[in-house]
Amino acid sequence: MCARKLGGQTVELSRPVSVLAGGNAVGRKEGEGPLARCFDYIDGDDTFGEPTWERAERAMQQRALSSAAEKCGCPVQKLDWLFAGDLLNQCVSSSFAARGQDVPFFGLYGACSTFGEGLILAAMALEGGFGERAGVAVSSHFCTAERQYRTPLEYGCQRPPTAQWTVTGAGAAILGAGDGGPRLTHLTPGKVVDKGITDTNNMGAAMAPAAYDTLSAHFRDTGRGPDFYDLIVTGDLGELGSQLLLELFRRDGVELSNHADCGLLIFRREEQDVHCGGSGCGCSAAVFTGYLLEGLRAGRWNELLFCPTGALHSPTTALQGESIPGICHAAALSAGPGPADKTGGKNGWNI
Amino acid sequence: MCARKLGGQTVELSRPVSVLAGGNAVGRKEGEGPLARCFDYIDGDDTFGEPTWERAERAMQQRALSSAAEKCGCPVQKLDWLFAGDLLNQCVSSSFAARGQDVPFFGLYGACSTFGEGLILAAMALEGGFGERAGVAVSSHFCTAERQYRTPLEYGCQRPPTAQWTVTGAGAAILGAGDGGPRLTHLTPGKVVDKGITDTNNMGAAMAPAAYDTLSAHFRDTGRGPDFYDLIVTGDLGELGSQLLLELFRRDGVELSNHADCGLLIFRREEQDVHCGGSGCGCSAAVFTGYLLEGLRAGRWNELLFCPTGALHSPTTALQGESIPGICHAAALSAGPGPADKTGGKNGWNI
Repeated sequence: MCARKLGGQTVELSRPVSVLAGGNAVGRKEGEGPLARCFDYIDGDDTFGEPTWERAERAMQQRALSSAAEKCGCPVQKLDWLFAGDLLNQCVSSSFAARGQDVPFFGLYGACSTFGEGLILAAMALEGGFGERAGVAVSSHFCTAERQYRTPLEYGCQRPPTAQWTVTGAGAAILGAGDGGPRLTHLTPGKVVDKGITDTNNMGAAMAPAAYDTLSAHFRDTGRGPDFYDLIVTGDLGELGSQLLLELFRRDGVELSNHADCGLLIFRREEQDVHCGGSGCGCSAAVFTGYLLEGLRAGRWNELLFCPTGALHSPTTALQGESIPGICHAAALSAGPGPADKTGGKNGWNI
Repeated sequence: MCARKLGGQTVELSRPVSVLAGGNAVGRKEGEGPLARCFDYIDGDDTFGEPTWERAERAMQQRALSSAAEKCGCPVQKLDWLFAGDLLNQCVSSSFAARGQDVPFFGLYGACSTFGEGLILAAMALEGGFGERAGVAVSSHFCTAERQYRTPLEYGCQRPPTAQWTVTGAGAAILGAGDGGPRLTHLTPGKVVDKGITDTNNMGAAMAPAAYDTLSAHFRDTGRGPDFYDLIVTGDLGELGSQLLLELFRRDGVELSNHADCGLLIFRREEQDVHCGGSGCGCSAAVFTGYLLEGLRAGRWNELLFCPTGALHSPTTALQGESIPGICHAAALSAGPGPADKTGGKNGWNI
């Protein structure tokens, strides 16, 4: 048969869905960070040759997708589906980037969790037999996000210590039914979790409870402990959010000793003055498609749990005094021998 | 096996995924329209008892989902997945409505096509074996949309003849694997189509090419002609958009004599002064879950093609002089004997 649902929230794929290729493009600040050599393209001034920041972000997302397509020899228009999203109002970076690409398109909004949401939906589509190749493309841009969510770029306001820096970055992955890369094995979509945080300058605190909720569900549903994984990577909890996540698990008597965060990986935090770290859905997308995929292929990690989070508020809800709901979408990937291979059985196909 | 892909863009489901129930809630103007008796709840002043328009929309979406849940005896927290979206920046109506509902959540953005997008993704999830019950919830509210997209409510600006009226409405459907209601049989997700329309007061013209594109793909992929269907229903092309769609097909020598549009169904256009008709993703959602589902169950129509469209621009892109991309997501439903039954064969399960 097909996949099966484990517990309340997790799906176990019954046949391989692999990440065939990842592509990305980032801005200057990201290109000056520790992961620079993992990125396909670094733009020198964040304009990507375009006259507006919005067009720059669109061009960046297109570049990331083209790069992934080129690496696996699958032109974008040959994809069966494209799942895409970004942080802008009406997700225009994604829609406009997909315009003219001649591929069926699903617009997503999960804030900074969108790349995880996209991986999950794309994997579900392929597992279900809906086509052979699906693309996931996500972006964020400091300049488009800053003026939409916060203040005009020229404003030069002070950022508090808990603030994070929206990454100028896009990441795209091409998934394929069958083998051909690190395999997605288990998917745990998240629930909307709100613990009452109202400080829009403290996204880490707003999102950490959602990460705790989804990860707990994942461990419970799969019967796996955190130590099953070589690495558990959140998207952009940042420094404080990461500490809070660890503390939440510590209260359960669980030590997450193998946790990393894309927002902490992508910048040299002190040197690049990003306070609590990088953020934005492009953060997890660029780091996943660059650094994490590379590590999975090189055997640095065999089992990886990728779990980006998102803060689901808007400037309007914040101004209306609402708290900030969060969400975390988790996808488990395996680059080692499949569980079935370890038992000497089939290659994962159950039919 | 599982579903199969037809042609470039359509999926044929290989086992029944049914619409078990539909629920909705609308505002006063919609409750004064011709479909009033099809709606579960009509609010007298569009506030839904809330102190802000944004909270009103959220409450309205929750009401629609609760109504659907009640009708099929499946509490919201027992759903396997919830797919939801709306027109607001960061889709806050949907995220906040899902907060505390304890259900895994996928945020979508397809503008006014979102309900079609949600039906497609939910059906794919269930067909793939991912759980048994999925919810789709979508809303729009005149007051939240008007001031975000156009002008403050107090502004009282003139609306041109091609303008449409954003529906205050929410619709929710609960899909189930197996029989139990009208069956989704074929899904044709749309591509982003842009023919250069820049007039943000003429959404019908912006979206009609996308409807033409998706419908053409659907007919081509399935081998069905328009006459296979008892009704082909777009979401909110409105009067002008509908005329344009018919004209586009007429150029191919095809007469769409069985076309209807939710935006033209929901209001008495002249009397209620809505110019080209209703719009908003709540329009198609409320009409589908009220009027169309009822008609399918009553045998008024056996084969229905539901194809809402969306305009994927934002105020920012419009102000920057961009044109308006559109998208159309189509889902075919059958309430008659299944094709397999007509041939005296199996009930649709191929495994």
